[in-house]
Amino acid sequence: MVTLPQMSETNRRLLLKTRPEGRVKNSDFDLVEEAVPEISDGEALIRTTWISLDPTNRVWMADQPGYLPPVAIGEVMRSGGLGRVVASKSPNYEVGQLVNGFTGWQEYVVASDSLPFTPLPDDLGVPESAFLGALGMTGLTAYFGITDVAKVEEGDTVVISAAAGAVGSVAGQIAKILGARVVGIAGGPEKCAWLVDELGFDAAVDYKADDWRAQLKEATPGGIDVNFENVGGEIMDAVFSRLKIGGRVALCGLISDYNNPDDPVGLRNFGAIITKRATVQGFLILDYFDRIKDATTQLAQWIGEGKLQSRETIVEGLANTPESLNLLFDGGNTGKLVVKIAD
Amino acid sequence: MVTLPQMSETNRRLLLKTRPEGRVKNSDFDLVEEAVPEISDGEALIRTTWISLDPTNRVWMADQPGYLPPVAIGEVMRSGGLGRVVASKSPNYEVGQLVNGFTGWQEYVVASDSLPFTPLPDDLGVPESAFLGALGMTGLTAYFGITDVAKVEEGDTVVISAAAGAVGSVAGQIAKILGARVVGIAGGPEKCAWLVDELGFDAAVDYKADDWRAQLKEATPGGIDVNFENVGGEIMDAVFSRLKIGGRVALCGLISDYNNPDDPVGLRNFGAIITKRATVQGFLILDYFDRIKDATTQLAQWIGEGKLQSRETIVEGLANTPESLNLLFDGGNTGKLVVKIAD
Repeated sequence: MVTLPQMSETNRRLLLKTRPEGRVKNSDFDLVEEAVPEISDGEALIRTTWISLDPTNRVWMADQPGYLPPVAIGEVMRSGGLGRVVASKSPNYEVGQLVNGFTGWQEYVVASDSLPFTPLPDDLGVPESAFLGALGMTGLTAYFGITDVAKVEEGDTVVISAAAGAVGSVAGQIAKILGARVVGIAGGPEKCAWLVDELGFDAAVDYKADDWRAQLKEATPGGIDVNFENVGGEIMDAVFSRLKIGGRVALCGLISDYNNPDDPVGLRNFGAIITKRATVQGFLILDYFDRIKDATTQLAQWIGEGKLQSRETIVEGLANTPESLNLLFDGGNTGKLVVKIAD
Repeated sequence: MVTLPQMSETNRRLLLKTRPEGRVKNSDFDLVEEAVPEISDGEALIRTTWISLDPTNRVWMADQPGYLPPVAIGEVMRSGGLGRVVASKSPNYEVGQLVNGFTGWQEYVVASDSLPFTPLPDDLGVPESAFLGALGMTGLTAYFGITDVAKVEEGDTVVISAAAGAVGSVAGQIAKILGARVVGIAGGPEKCAWLVDELGFDAAVDYKADDWRAQLKEATPGGIDVNFENVGGEIMDAVFSRLKIGGRVALCGLISDYNNPDDPVGLRNFGAIITKRATVQGFLILDYFDRIKDATTQLAQWIGEGKLQSRETIVEGLANTPESLNLLFDGGNTGKLVVKIAD
């Protein structure tokens, strides 16, 4: 017997009003109340329960071509999320099902052929929010980046930026499971301690400390085999300069540039790719959709065995969702940042 | 019967006096006259006949770690070059042999176990300077970059920067031989015409023209599979933004940054590597030394078949060698830039 989430009579939605400059403000969005949508044959009504906050949301707000088009002015903000099916006129969805997909920043969304949702198993014994964490797109991104892109092997020294973030924290744990020596870069002693003491990283570098360069050097005395990169900027430059000959970089994200889409820093130390004969490979989870099921099974198994932890930072309330996104850029989250929309 | 090169009684040498700032000046070097060195057992005396001018010379002048250490103040400037053995106390060298190696910017150099030279065949029917061109390090760099790094295949659209330069002109011709569609980026209508009319490139983009972006777009209507990159900077950024999904970049050089080693531009559009799921691989010819013989045979065969042209821009005189290097940064050469030191 599944408990349906709390219902409401209206559908509150956040529509993009103006493209943010720099940090995102709540006032860049219109919060509107509309009627809960009616569904037609072949559709299902989803009540959003959790919204996933990701750096890519910030990218979608800018008027820049990307792997998905920008969100148009007046459109509901695009995001991943979880929900429960509360009504269905489709054989693909059963009332009560937990589903994952592009909920957007709104309380209700209609699943259809053009906006499909993926049913999730309810019986893995993990909290629902883990399906946006270690078992969600970020966890899967970490999985494919470490295994398929960086091809991490036993004995590799792997440096992970934004290591206390949603992707980084899972990437580091997977690299440890594969037998690598793992160094995480994170902001502040608390996060660094969490990486080493709770997640079993071999070392952590506090990028907010004045001596972060010395810390990085000390943590990678023999150089770096693999950089799993989420941030970019000055720290990435320093990591590139410590790559071993033949080093590999799995380029997952460049969050330090996302608030300045018109004036990105990029990689100034690009020449290191030549001198180190390095390989830098960009990747996106959407190229791995056909392998998601097997990967999820593997990740869930590791969680069950106690080898992999899923951690989420939970904020509440749809209205404050835009400014909550800034936590990602301020280092305000540990693990996956999610918004709880309904019980 | 080999004719030995003209002899002199002194060894004129260019010693690094001060590290250049920006463009190289003759006054950054001391031109000294020393006695022609005596050789000991196991050594041979080489008379330099040709000096190779390469962007990497500029890198070696800066006090920056690289794949080779910087040239020290007071040391003879390091460079590749050709010479003839004029005296030998080593079983490895015969008087009269044409050899290739680190001659440096000087008229005589001593070959030894710690500074070995490679004997070259005299019977390929190519001008001597071609051994610094299509059959030299630059030609070999082009060969391995196109075949081994970029893995160019029939039908690929390949964009080559500095396409009229020593590496680029050979890289483009090899890509054509392999069946690719080749677009060269070069400075000025004369070089662009040379690429298309003489070397058989499919299109050329004149980066000195105001409409170079439009030219690039027109020349690559379906996007770019492979970028063989020699330059960096704004043009590379534009090329990256036109990579196809899964595009490959063979990163050979970044000459636009070499005059500003303390303030490189790098790649600002680094995020394109993610959105295009591109692979960027740096490489250096020194990792391919064990395959040079086979590659040289292949290149010589293509030259013999008329499929590959070697072109050199020849300047004369040791004394002006430092400022001649600037031609590489000014686009003053077509093909390989060499200095003739002796007949």
